[in-house]
Amino acid sequence: MPEPSRSASTAKGAARGVKTNAPAKRQRRPGLKEMGLSAGKRTRLRHLLYDHGPGGGTLLVLPIDQGLEHGPVDFFENPEALDPAYQYRLARDGRFSAIALHIGLAEKYYHEFAGEVPLILKLNGKTSIPSDTEAFSALTGSVEDAVRLGADAVGYTVYVGSPAQDRDFDQFRRVRQDADRLGMPIIVWAYPRGEAVAKKGGKESLYAIDYAARVALELGADVVKLNYPVRSEKDRDSPPPYNTLQVTAEQAFHRVVQSAGRSLVLVSGGEKVGDADLLAKVRASMDSGATGIIFGRNLWQRPREQALALTRQLHEIFREYAQPPE
Amino acid sequence: MPEPSRSASTAKGAARGVKTNAPAKRQRRPGLKEMGLSAGKRTRLRHLLYDHGPGGGTLLVLPIDQGLEHGPVDFFENPEALDPAYQYRLARDGRFSAIALHIGLAEKYYHEFAGEVPLILKLNGKTSIPSDTEAFSALTGSVEDAVRLGADAVGYTVYVGSPAQDRDFDQFRRVRQDADRLGMPIIVWAYPRGEAVAKKGGKESLYAIDYAARVALELGADVVKLNYPVRSEKDRDSPPPYNTLQVTAEQAFHRVVQSAGRSLVLVSGGEKVGDADLLAKVRASMDSGATGIIFGRNLWQRPREQALALTRQLHEIFREYAQPPE
Amino acid sequence: MPEPSRSASTAKGAARGVKTNAPAKRQRRPGLKEMGLSAGKRTRLRHLLYDHGPGGGTLLVLPIDQGLEHGPVDFFENPEALDPAYQYRLARDGRFSAIALHIGLAEKYYHEFAGEVPLILKLNGKTSIPSDTEAFSALTGSVEDAVRLGADAVGYTVYVGSPAQDRDFDQFRRVRQDADRLGMPIIVWAYPRGEAVAKKGGKESLYAIDYAARVALELGADVVKLNYPVRSEKDRDSPPPYNTLQVTAEQAFHRVVQSAGRSLVLVSGGEKVGDADLLAKVRASMDSGATGIIFGRNLWQRPREQALALTRQLHEIFREYAQPPE
Amino acid sequence: MPEPSRSASTAKGAARGVKTNAPAKRQRRPGLKEMGLSAGKRTRLRHLLYDHGPGGGTLLVLPIDQGLEHGPVDFFENPEALDPAYQYRLARDGRFSAIALHIGLAEKYYHEFAGEVPLILKLNGKTSIPSDTEAFSALTGSVEDAVRLGADAVGYTVYVGSPAQDRDFDQFRRVRQDADRLGMPIIVWAYPRGEAVAKKGGKESLYAIDYAARVALELGADVVKLNYPVRSEKDRDSPPPYNTLQVTAEQAFHRVVQSAGRSLVLVSGGEKVGDADLLAKVRASMDSGATGIIFGRNLWQRPREQALALTRQLHEIFREYAQPPE
Amino acid sequence: MPEPSRSASTAKGAARGVKTNAPAKRQRRPGLKEMGLSAGKRTRLRHLLYDHGPGGGTLLVLPIDQGLEHGPVDFFENPEALDPAYQYRLARDGRFSAIALHIGLAEKYYHEFAGEVPLILKLNGKTSIPSDTEAFSALTGSVEDAVRLGADAVGYTVYVGSPAQDRDFDQFRRVRQDADRLGMPIIVWAYPRGEAVAKKGGKESLYAIDYAARVALELGADVVKLNYPVRSEKDRDSPPPYNTLQVTAEQAFHRVVQSAGRSLVLVSGGEKVGDADLLAKVRASMDSGATGIIFGRNLWQRPREQALALTRQLHEIFREYAQPPE
Repeated sequence: MPEPSRSASTAKGAARGVKTNAPAKRQRRPGLKEMGLSAGKRTRLRHLLYDHGPGGGTLLVLPIDQGLEHGPVDFFENPEALDPAYQYRLARDGRFSAIALHIGLAEKYYHEFAGEVPLILKLNGKTSIPSDTEAFSALTGSVEDAVRLGADAVGYTVYVGSPAQDRDFDQFRRVRQDADRLGMPIIVWAYPRGEAVAKKGGKESLYAIDYAARVALELGADVVKLNYPVRSEKDRDSPPPYNTLQVTAEQAFHRVVQSAGRSLVLVSGGEKVGDADLLAKVRASMDSGATGIIFGRNLWQRPREQALALTRQLHEIFREYAQPPE
Repeated sequence: MPEPSRSASTAKGAARGVKTNAPAKRQRRPGLKEMGLSAGKRTRLRHLLYDHGPGGGTLLVLPIDQGLEHGPVDFFENPEALDPAYQYRLARDGRFSAIALHIGLAEKYYHEFAGEVPLILKLNGKTSIPSDTEAFSALTGSVEDAVRLGADAVGYTVYVGSPAQDRDFDQFRRVRQDADRLGMPIIVWAYPRGEAVAKKGGKESLYAIDYAARVALELGADVVKLNYPVRSEKDRDSPPPYNTLQVTAEQAFHRVVQSAGRSLVLVSGGEKVGDADLLAKVRASMDSGATGIIFGRNLWQRPREQALALTRQLHEIFREYAQPPE
Repeated sequence: MPEPSRSASTAKGAARGVKTNAPAKRQRRPGLKEMGLSAGKRTRLRHLLYDHGPGGGTLLVLPIDQGLEHGPVDFFENPEALDPAYQYRLARDGRFSAIALHIGLAEKYYHEFAGEVPLILKLNGKTSIPSDTEAFSALTGSVEDAVRLGADAVGYTVYVGSPAQDRDFDQFRRVRQDADRLGMPIIVWAYPRGEAVAKKGGKESLYAIDYAARVALELGADVVKLNYPVRSEKDRDSPPPYNTLQVTAEQAFHRVVQSAGRSLVLVSGGEKVGDADLLAKVRASMDSGATGIIFGRNLWQRPREQALALTRQLHEIFREYAQPPE
Repeated sequence: MPEPSRSASTAKGAARGVKTNAPAKRQRRPGLKEMGLSAGKRTRLRHLLYDHGPGGGTLLVLPIDQGLEHGPVDFFENPEALDPAYQYRLARDGRFSAIALHIGLAEKYYHEFAGEVPLILKLNGKTSIPSDTEAFSALTGSVEDAVRLGADAVGYTVYVGSPAQDRDFDQFRRVRQDADRLGMPIIVWAYPRGEAVAKKGGKESLYAIDYAARVALELGADVVKLNYPVRSEKDRDSPPPYNTLQVTAEQAFHRVVQSAGRSLVLVSGGEKVGDADLLAKVRASMDSGATGIIFGRNLWQRPREQALALTRQLHEIFREYAQPPE
Repeated sequence: MPEPSRSASTAKGAARGVKTNAPAKRQRRPGLKEMGLSAGKRTRLRHLLYDHGPGGGTLLVLPIDQGLEHGPVDFFENPEALDPAYQYRLARDGRFSAIALHIGLAEKYYHEFAGEVPLILKLNGKTSIPSDTEAFSALTGSVEDAVRLGADAVGYTVYVGSPAQDRDFDQFRRVRQDADRLGMPIIVWAYPRGEAVAKKGGKESLYAIDYAARVALELGADVVKLNYPVRSEKDRDSPPPYNTLQVTAEQAFHRVVQSAGRSLVLVSGGEKVGDADLLAKVRASMDSGATGIIFGRNLWQRPREQALALTRQLHEIFREYAQPPE
């Protein structure tokens, strides 16, 4: 029985008196074979990892749920992007592994792109209008909706640390059980949220993101979408040893990937940044054992030709990390 | 694969430093073919759009749920309108596309008008008596009730921005899934509500209505009922770029129609206004890509003959916007 | 297609500048044929309206749910009435159209009176002990219980205006759907309640009762139990035009009956009053289009012989309002 | 049709200006025949009333749910009683009508005593640790559990007057419906609780217990467990006429038994008291029409031999109240 | 019928004026035969007690749910332990009776160890991030998940004393019923929690743990995981007689084991302590009638070789307590 190499690459970190796990160059990603997947899940994940997008076991996902999560405000930057068909065409023409969106955009538009680009049906969401104090995303769709539409995975947002975590865990469990029953891979958007998170270093702290990664693994995520931790003064508010850890952002992210265990890691794009920064982040993520990226605004807020050019660069990077199917 | 022309008509707006989408004359409406509808939904929507009312792909809907939403107070203006049969006769004699109402008015009265005017069963509602702080409309009927009664669509109110949005999304999802299962078109009354909306420009602001339109699209509305945005000082409280957008009311409404994507747009009538204002609003709405109107008090608060005369004018206008079925 | 005569009898009221609907003598009651009833509902309602009690399309109902709603305190006035069998005997010997009570009194006592007096199973209730701020009556029985026990109708209390209206509407809908499925008539106890009602004129105001009548109609009541509006200074707190309406109590009640549309109206008895007042109220109610009365304390708080004598007078009055089945 | 004799023994009480019902010696208990029971319920109740325990239509029940309700603190008085097998042996050797306990004690111990002493499965409970403000006992078992274990009845606690009464009624209804479906008698522990009860005379006041008895009857209890009312100064806070009633404790209890109607009444033991007081209370209860007693701490907090001796005295008393099965 | 010997060993304790139960050397553990188990439960428990781990009717369980409950913070001490496969290998190589973890770690890793070490699927959990005021652990898995994965038991956390106890009891009941239906043993993590617990001596007080043990028994635990009570000044805040009990920690624990009745007791490890203390605690626990231990951090926070050495010592101790299957 092979021992996963990721945890074997452990090294003593630079933290004061605290052992940690520093990244080695090119961390191994979990293989489909070792993930304990049912035939249905494995078929669909293989489809995403090897048959579409950059392939070679990597993932390049285009999300378009920001219209619901942030409102149409995100589309002013590039007005064409207000039309959901724009993102579909971008995903198809840029050869993405999949496009991720809610039921309305799936039912009204996917029929025109069916089979040309794989679909990830996002199953829960909320608006940004009311207070986020008890952050919770209600279901907008179901695993059966995803099956009916020919999707290859479903997406679910867990707000780790929210006072509403009990409702969230319960709702997730039902989705996870449907996904197990129907052989549908489940991608968890693992987002730290809430007052208690804010008090312990904030939602971008290593403490919070590390915890979120582990929660996703323990709850049953096949893939987990994580933000890149931001090292800052606020880390001092995190519980020990996080408050005194002396690690780089890359080391921090590697730690997070390890905490996700055999859940594949997708790196979140967040707000639009420059090309160079973006590509550097992608390389660092892949070096740390991430399986891919899920970038929305960084792509569809750019003019189409710029977005496609950037996508070609992403494909080139991903080619370096390609591995044959196990 | 045809690219929808609506988003193709984008133009640089007059906003300070912010790109927006200005209306061209006569915006194209989404066609049934491109909406990804099941056979059942398409059959019923075609029935409403082409076989009844003004036809030609337009909608003229008479709502009579104000007795529940506002109380019988709305019927003092025209006492005859207190009798629900009055509205049925008005819808039939004025050749409306459909009448929209709750289960009690459907069960007790529709049998006398069955087949003469199509029925939209409104599925949720509330009274205006208790506080609106956590606005939420509970179900009063089901999609199966609608099927049993021979309805051609169901209506559902989503309070976008309410703190109760999680319950609302969850309830809507169940209705949407029933509607998908039974091939029943679903019309969303998309209403911004709640304290957070009030703080960000109010429920009539472009910010709020634009967001509401997109939420309806993403959640799976086939048709969405929207209010016409009102430009006012309060827009300054909206998030950027809404707080500095320099657009006319028509441009604002066009933006909203675009945000609704492939959900057909119905314009709400609101409180009674003069004939000229009303007809101008209808033309502007149709020019901006709306599919039709849903006017209640503006019709049944007028004396019957005046209402019928106004209806004839509406038919005339709609004739100008008629398109053959695709 | 016949136009209902009730709304045809509209007259200009005495209100300052506001049109209203004044009662004509002997308003028509909705007929079973026009109510859109299923065969099961029509059979059972016909049983109540024509085969038992005063008949001729009228209803004389004896309720005995006060032990739950108010506690046994209501039985001190006439101690014999503490025994539920007392009310059954009164209903049977006084030839009532039906007796209305909760599951416990139905299961333990109705078997002795089965078939001798029709049963209305009250399906929800509460005690008067805790605060009424969020008034809500939970289910104590089901439509299937009613069918099993041979009941001819079910009763349900809606607290119109309560902050808990969403739970109430939802619970009512489930009951209404069971009633539709099983052909069981549903009688709504439509009670205005809550802080917002108190602020707008109170639970006995025309505003509140008029709204309650309409809510019952729109939600799907076959019969609605309403209190007689009390005209008072507090009406000034009601929304316009209610705050300036100049109508008599009789005109106010007629308005309420019209708002109930094709839901048959039962007038509530309330606290015990003198014989003359009671009979006058009955006549006025029937003149205004009520279908019958539901009097509890006014009957079983009187000594048995007095109650039976009063019942005979009620039968005499009802005979004047008898109509043949349509 | 026989008129129940209980209410026939009504007499004018000693209250100032208020009529009440004073106890006659040896009040009649409701018979199985008049209770409208299904065959299953009647079979099981007959088993408890005539085939086990003192018989002759009486009930002697040993409850052992205090470990959950109060904690193991109740077992310090008689350490042997910490072992649930102790109570089973006491119930068997003392020839009780039944033992009443929760699922865990039933599953782990009843198999050794199966058929030797009847089982009442208590279906809901709570600990005494958190605040009692919104007292509510969640389900710990189901009617189907009871059937599976061979129980002859189920027990359910209703907290009359609690702000959580809506959840309680709803939960009770589901249990009651299962019990009706499966022919299982249901015993209601009717306990007044909550701030509003405290303000109106307290949980031991006649007002509160009288109301609780009636609630149990109306909700569908076959048997109701009630506390003996305590007359005190606090009665002055009860609503009229309770605040001025001049009745003895025995008269008060008789009133309560009458309010329970055809629900059989079990008197609660409460905290441990002396033998003479206990036996006097039992006689007074039986004279007032109670069907039996449910004494826990008063038995298993005594040393085993004392408890058995006391039980023999209870059997002697019950023999005086024996009646043949109707 | 054999009388269980545990309660037979009762002795007068040293408490001032209060009787208690002092431990005799080598208390008897409940046997499978007397626990009233179904065939399925007995098969699986026998598997854990006799066929794996130290055997002889003892249990040595390795839990790894701390990643969810505390976050990855617990893995800094021994970085290798961040990889869940590490714990699986430790459980297998150290010959544990079972490993206990959540669905994600079961689905992703157990397939590699299936059949080599038994699985206990932990069914509910929460993070430590938000406030613990209304402590409640939502479901992360189901009994059916456990069956599908080949588990031999399920684990469930009850927060005894939490204001959310009603939801907890209700959720537990559903799990317990599934476990009864499918013959799956259920292990309860019985944890006192909440403000009221804090006020009455705290979560480590004998009062709280004694109550927790009894709650687990009454709710239907087959096995209960308990903390060792800590005697401290805070005991004075406990209700009498706990506030004045003069018992050693061992006597206190023995009391707790007795309160658990026929639920087998597992002693919780808690935070990492030295070897000598640990082994002493194990012996004392087993002497008091515990069936085994469930130690996590005390094992996997030690370097692997130290952990395995310690495990060998635990096996030696357990050999002394081995009993043949009854």
